[in-house]
Amino acid sequence: MLLEQRQKLLFIGDSVTDCDRAKPHGEGLFHALGNGYVSIVDAFLKANYPELGIRVVNKGISGNTVRDLKARWQEDVITQNPDWLSIMIGINDVWRQFDSPPFIKDHHVYIEEYQETLTALVKESKLQTENILLMTPPYYIEINENDLMRAKMDQYGKVVKQIAEEEGCLFIDTQAAFNKILKNLYAATIAWDRVHPNEIGHTILAKAFLNKIGFDWTK
Amino acid sequence: MLLEQRQKLLFIGDSVTDCDRAKPHGEGLFHALGNGYVSIVDAFLKANYPELGIRVVNKGISGNTVRDLKARWQEDVITQNPDWLSIMIGINDVWRQFDSPPFIKDHHVYIEEYQETLTALVKESKLQTENILLMTPPYYIEINENDLMRAKMDQYGKVVKQIAEEEGCLFIDTQAAFNKILKNLYAATIAWDRVHPNEIGHTILAKAFLNKIGFDWTK
Amino acid sequence: MLLEQRQKLLFIGDSVTDCDRAKPHGEGLFHALGNGYVSIVDAFLKANYPELGIRVVNKGISGNTVRDLKARWQEDVITQNPDWLSIMIGINDVWRQFDSPPFIKDHHVYIEEYQETLTALVKESKLQTENILLMTPPYYIEINENDLMRAKMDQYGKVVKQIAEEEGCLFIDTQAAFNKILKNLYAATIAWDRVHPNEIGHTILAKAFLNKIGFDWTK
Amino acid sequence: MLLEQRQKLLFIGDSVTDCDRAKPHGEGLFHALGNGYVSIVDAFLKANYPELGIRVVNKGISGNTVRDLKARWQEDVITQNPDWLSIMIGINDVWRQFDSPPFIKDHHVYIEEYQETLTALVKESKLQTENILLMTPPYYIEINENDLMRAKMDQYGKVVKQIAEEEGCLFIDTQAAFNKILKNLYAATIAWDRVHPNEIGHTILAKAFLNKIGFDWTK
Amino acid sequence: MLLEQRQKLLFIGDSVTDCDRAKPHGEGLFHALGNGYVSIVDAFLKANYPELGIRVVNKGISGNTVRDLKARWQEDVITQNPDWLSIMIGINDVWRQFDSPPFIKDHHVYIEEYQETLTALVKESKLQTENILLMTPPYYIEINENDLMRAKMDQYGKVVKQIAEEEGCLFIDTQAAFNKILKNLYAATIAWDRVHPNEIGHTILAKAFLNKIGFDWTK
Amino acid sequence: MLLEQRQKLLFIGDSVTDCDRAKPHGEGLFHALGNGYVSIVDAFLKANYPELGIRVVNKGISGNTVRDLKARWQEDVITQNPDWLSIMIGINDVWRQFDSPPFIKDHHVYIEEYQETLTALVKESKLQTENILLMTPPYYIEINENDLMRAKMDQYGKVVKQIAEEEGCLFIDTQAAFNKILKNLYAATIAWDRVHPNEIGHTILAKAFLNKIGFDWTK
Amino acid sequence: MLLEQRQKLLFIGDSVTDCDRAKPHGEGLFHALGNGYVSIVDAFLKANYPELGIRVVNKGISGNTVRDLKARWQEDVITQNPDWLSIMIGINDVWRQFDSPPFIKDHHVYIEEYQETLTALVKESKLQTENILLMTPPYYIEINENDLMRAKMDQYGKVVKQIAEEEGCLFIDTQAAFNKILKNLYAATIAWDRVHPNEIGHTILAKAFLNKIGFDWTK
Amino acid sequence: MLLEQRQKLLFIGDSVTDCDRAKPHGEGLFHALGNGYVSIVDAFLKANYPELGIRVVNKGISGNTVRDLKARWQEDVITQNPDWLSIMIGINDVWRQFDSPPFIKDHHVYIEEYQETLTALVKESKLQTENILLMTPPYYIEINENDLMRAKMDQYGKVVKQIAEEEGCLFIDTQAAFNKILKNLYAATIAWDRVHPNEIGHTILAKAFLNKIGFDWTK
Repeated sequence: MLLEQRQKLLFIGDSVTDCDRAKPHGEGLFHALGNGYVSIVDAFLKANYPELGIRVVNKGISGNTVRDLKARWQEDVITQNPDWLSIMIGINDVWRQFDSPPFIKDHHVYIEEYQETLTALVKESKLQTENILLMTPPYYIEINENDLMRAKMDQYGKVVKQIAEEEGCLFIDTQAAFNKILKNLYAATIAWDRVHPNEIGHTILAKAFLNKIGFDWTK
Repeated sequence: MLLEQRQKLLFIGDSVTDCDRAKPHGEGLFHALGNGYVSIVDAFLKANYPELGIRVVNKGISGNTVRDLKARWQEDVITQNPDWLSIMIGINDVWRQFDSPPFIKDHHVYIEEYQETLTALVKESKLQTENILLMTPPYYIEINENDLMRAKMDQYGKVVKQIAEEEGCLFIDTQAAFNKILKNLYAATIAWDRVHPNEIGHTILAKAFLNKIGFDWTK
Repeated sequence: MLLEQRQKLLFIGDSVTDCDRAKPHGEGLFHALGNGYVSIVDAFLKANYPELGIRVVNKGISGNTVRDLKARWQEDVITQNPDWLSIMIGINDVWRQFDSPPFIKDHHVYIEEYQETLTALVKESKLQTENILLMTPPYYIEINENDLMRAKMDQYGKVVKQIAEEEGCLFIDTQAAFNKILKNLYAATIAWDRVHPNEIGHTILAKAFLNKIGFDWTK
Repeated sequence: MLLEQRQKLLFIGDSVTDCDRAKPHGEGLFHALGNGYVSIVDAFLKANYPELGIRVVNKGISGNTVRDLKARWQEDVITQNPDWLSIMIGINDVWRQFDSPPFIKDHHVYIEEYQETLTALVKESKLQTENILLMTPPYYIEINENDLMRAKMDQYGKVVKQIAEEEGCLFIDTQAAFNKILKNLYAATIAWDRVHPNEIGHTILAKAFLNKIGFDWTK
Repeated sequence: MLLEQRQKLLFIGDSVTDCDRAKPHGEGLFHALGNGYVSIVDAFLKANYPELGIRVVNKGISGNTVRDLKARWQEDVITQNPDWLSIMIGINDVWRQFDSPPFIKDHHVYIEEYQETLTALVKESKLQTENILLMTPPYYIEINENDLMRAKMDQYGKVVKQIAEEEGCLFIDTQAAFNKILKNLYAATIAWDRVHPNEIGHTILAKAFLNKIGFDWTK
Repeated sequence: MLLEQRQKLLFIGDSVTDCDRAKPHGEGLFHALGNGYVSIVDAFLKANYPELGIRVVNKGISGNTVRDLKARWQEDVITQNPDWLSIMIGINDVWRQFDSPPFIKDHHVYIEEYQETLTALVKESKLQTENILLMTPPYYIEINENDLMRAKMDQYGKVVKQIAEEEGCLFIDTQAAFNKILKNLYAATIAWDRVHPNEIGHTILAKAFLNKIGFDWTK
Repeated sequence: MLLEQRQKLLFIGDSVTDCDRAKPHGEGLFHALGNGYVSIVDAFLKANYPELGIRVVNKGISGNTVRDLKARWQEDVITQNPDWLSIMIGINDVWRQFDSPPFIKDHHVYIEEYQETLTALVKESKLQTENILLMTPPYYIEINENDLMRAKMDQYGKVVKQIAEEEGCLFIDTQAAFNKILKNLYAATIAWDRVHPNEIGHTILAKAFLNKIGFDWTK
Repeated sequence: MLLEQRQKLLFIGDSVTDCDRAKPHGEGLFHALGNGYVSIVDAFLKANYPELGIRVVNKGISGNTVRDLKARWQEDVITQNPDWLSIMIGINDVWRQFDSPPFIKDHHVYIEEYQETLTALVKESKLQTENILLMTPPYYIEINENDLMRAKMDQYGKVVKQIAEEEGCLFIDTQAAFNKILKNLYAATIAWDRVHPNEIGHTILAKAFLNKIGFDWTK
């Protein structure tokens, strides 16, 4: 188990992280952490390691791209001074290129800007902590050569992996965790619109996170 | 234009037809026809052929399978005695095999029951009218060899086509109408969850319907 | 078809244009364009010309007169820099002289101010684009020599036509489109209060617009 | 003043009478009489003739035609045993022929059925009381030769007058009361949709009623 | 009839005047004048004198004392520049001395302050118009020597009368109008809590007002 | 203290007893006893005599007259088999003769019916328990020779006293308890509409009740 | 892992099981299983063993005692014919003896009735399946010799254990699972009112359940 | 009775004092004092001593610690200039160390800061009045050696007693008042979550307060 006593673990991201958390500060009881993977991670940390007293903070905001994270990085991450930082961002950066509507180009965050911005944010936070986790933004759809968004999401995922390697972050391949399930469950069973996971999808995310930090399930 | 003066055109189906129509009877002003393709068809019929006085009735109910249609066919179709009857059913028959949850087999309507039931309903209505339109149930997702539900939907669509041919119904291939758009717009732009279309998706359905009945757009 | 690839088409007007659009910016999916003629125009543009990628923006605001448009022209039109601009305004300018209550004269916009202001707005926008459409503000009531508001609306409609000719705008005679229907449908079937059209009325407006820009319905 | 001490005055009709009255029984304080002309009549009766102790009962129901009145005449009129009975019905009988939608003929109540039914109801009530008032159903629109519904409403109004004469009822020509105002106020100032009057329109109705029963305004 | 063509009549007061009027400006259709005596006055003015085009404005605010009127006199009266001004104030000035709770003396407006302030407001408005009406604040309870608030209300009413005489205003004795009814109707039939009148009570107020301005009921 | 261990105390009456209690059965925590004098009595019984384990049940229903009590006596009183029974009824029996509206005579319960019915109910319950308390129905208004309802309420109160004497019930003179306060607090401070008491009024009722059963406040 | 392919696992109990599940049938997506331990169990079963296709059904109802379970056992358990059955009941059986209010003895389910009823239900279900799990009803409060409810809950827990042994059921000691956490977290951190657990408390319950059925967390 | 005529009694504290009082100022009728012990104290003061005209003000705010009181002492206490001041604070100071979550140390108010701050506030207010009452913050749970929060609450209670002695304040031992009841009623009967009392718990608090100020219950 990598986390140590009284450390603060901060999650930042988009709607998949947000999940109706308390605003402006997502910490504490009464669903303050939202109802997604962050809450599951917190509950298992408290259930298995109550003696550690880990503080979990949720700073996800629905609809965010990496461009939005940049705008609030100082207030929502740096001033929080976390011991551990988990970042999962990118679905909206790509989605806006395909959905509502694809023609509004100023809402798109292309891969160069994505890589550049995410790298800069990681570098800035490394001045505070070496404990940074990068999760690929998951897209819940079958692998499909004809699916353009599926292909683009994979490219963004590769960027995340590349940054993790370059900057020495822990890397969590959420797509790999999902692919294992996909052999038995259709994508729509896990995420109605292929983007927002239900309890099953969030549990997969939480498991991937906890496994990466050396969580002992049998403790 | 196939429809004649003072004829009654009745639509039956699932949530794609329903679209929050008035219950129990979907006819009249004030959104009584719902906000989907049925309403668009009605508005264009009234705008281009006001002299015909076509009555449009919406009898769609969200979540219905062909098994549900069978249970209410007498009340919602036969007693209405329509001059024209349009049927679009099948997405839930298939979806239940993939989504919520696929393990509840008694909610599934397999292809044999689907074919048998739909054929019987068409035969029963043919005693009242020869003017029956069969629309394939659309699934808004890219053609994909790996996508099991996509494949199964196409099989059900073929059954619809077969019944139309056997029973002498007008056949509307909604999937073909959609595929044309797909070259330029990603599926999620048309149907958030790949099943429930937005205004663009409903307009495609309405266009396919109106074209099939010989609607003159320039009138 | 007059519109070309990736152009932006902006609609401005009053409640007939607004139709509960997203505020402050009316663009995108999820009913952001409202539920009136603007949404119908957008859906048909995307359904028939998906390859063009036309951006449609709705800037209508309920209750507006041309005086209100003037106050927000810089922010809502000029800074948007549209390639195509459609203006439909005037019903409130006249209505306030007849309804609630006719005695509050400072709410009236008389025909001189109407003509002067609308001309100035068109001239200002012509510095950005030559593609301006002027739609007459429709009043859904039978032609009637005894009806004073009917008579006044026609005068305002003539002003719109005159400005279109003087400034070289495309002119859309919504009243003419309506009169054709009126032979078979009573006015109240199209607009409950003779001002706010229902789906039929909005379809008539959308058809008039699309026909004017050379829309190919059979594409 | 025709009404005498402790008499019961019952109003029956459609939405113009109903005006959100208490259901099932419209009598008493706290807006039980609704917010239309019935409430104004009651307030003036109590303000000018408190010593008479007149009971006012409102049995209007929105959307009713004379066919609906017939169905509930026994329960809502006969068993109430009123000393005075006021009937205003007919707008929906005609409106359904013009609005939502004109093609649904089974919702129409044509003039023969209207005359026959209303006559029968009056005859039945005359067994209880001789004090019956018939009000023409008002339509708030300018007199207009081109307006088909205006013309038809006048025909129904003439039927009301004819029945009043034949059966010896008091006759209230609401349209005449309205026409006087029309010279100075546009119809939309009095009734938004030309059918449901606002405070001004209801005051005109109440005045016509009170004048007919010999109300002394200066008492 | 004292009011002349196109004049503006402004009412100011407390909750009895307010009656849920539109805020901040109470003028126009759609219940903008509230549902009390102001609305009744307006409806009768428009019904009997439509040719005059009287503008009626309601500036009542619930809970106000004369001290509150003073604070907003400039904005709500002077800048409105009315041709006719009607003032009814004082119930809260007295009520606070008896109800909630009587011990909070800083909420009380004693008779000296009341007289002084009301006189000053009238004097200020007389610079704009000579047409000022003063209505005594009504308290709907039986005359009762044991009732301290009843006694005090009468003292405040006498002050209103005195100011009307000194400043040459029209004086409306609402209490006298009420006393006439009281012989036949118990106070609670007119005002549930003896302060806020229902439709009957408001009709009595409106009648008293209209009679004072020479309103012709038979016109 | 008259109540003994594990006894059940049942209150029945109108809105003053009801006070938004749980329906159909008013017993237990979470405001099941309503927010009036019954709840105060219960809280003091539990606070001062927790060892007794008294069960308190509230069976008040808003708007009830003694006629209504009779209709539900079997279900709400007899089958409950209370050890102690407290009855406070009569305000609506009288109020209906004065308020809404006084002309609806079939809603009135005159003093003969009142006396007869209440006596019968008491006699019926005496077969179950000798411990019956009769509270006079309070009317929160100054004693006033001119006030007809005040006078009638006192007559009904005298009937309650007479029945208590004849049937050997404990008698609680709520009016006397109120009169003591009246020397210092105006009636409106205790009951907004003179019928429904606030916290102060309910506390006076609870005190009168507790004093009558020998409650020791200093325990 | 004890569960096998396509088996149905049914949970029955009180509010801790219910957690706002879908009614009347708790099965499927969209929070149909509620937001408590049942949902966590289901998500982990689907995430780790998607190939098994386990059906999870939630039949908990808030406020139930074992007496309530008995009343609905036939409909909610026997007709469901589960392969696995998990029962957690008893907190309300005890709580009613201590809380709201303790004096209402007919709401209490004493230990003899509890043991007898639960045994009978288990015996009845054993005719259908041998796979029955009994969970002790958890009470989230520190062990405390002075706490009477704590002591009584432990007695009921012992009864559960005894039945499990006698009837050959799997036994889950939820209290033991909780006690481990209690060394580091105060009871109120896990259950606000000591009865209804939050996410942490439900995670502890789910873990205890999954461990008992041989769940492989690392799969 | 210690309070004298026309004195102002101000209560300050946390949610137990707040109880949904009017904001920003808690004084007057219509539940302005909330529904807790403050309202009960006020009602009994007015019921037994109406001649004194005591003003009661509630300045409790939910969630407050003594640190929060300090921040608003000037505005909510000093400028109110009370004759009597009652302070009950501390439950949140301690609770945050145990509940949501205990790991967020910046929300804790440890005993040194508590003592120091409360002493300073008392000293500051003593410059205005000598009549200060200090109530211990009650925690509704059985005395329990294993209960850490119970133990800590008692330490804070001792600090309150110590300050009362040092500064010459009246001291109210709410815990002692509660312990007396505890012999017969389980803690959960009085406070659902052991912190927020119900009507019984608030009555115990009000009784302790009134007894301390020499209230005569039999007056």
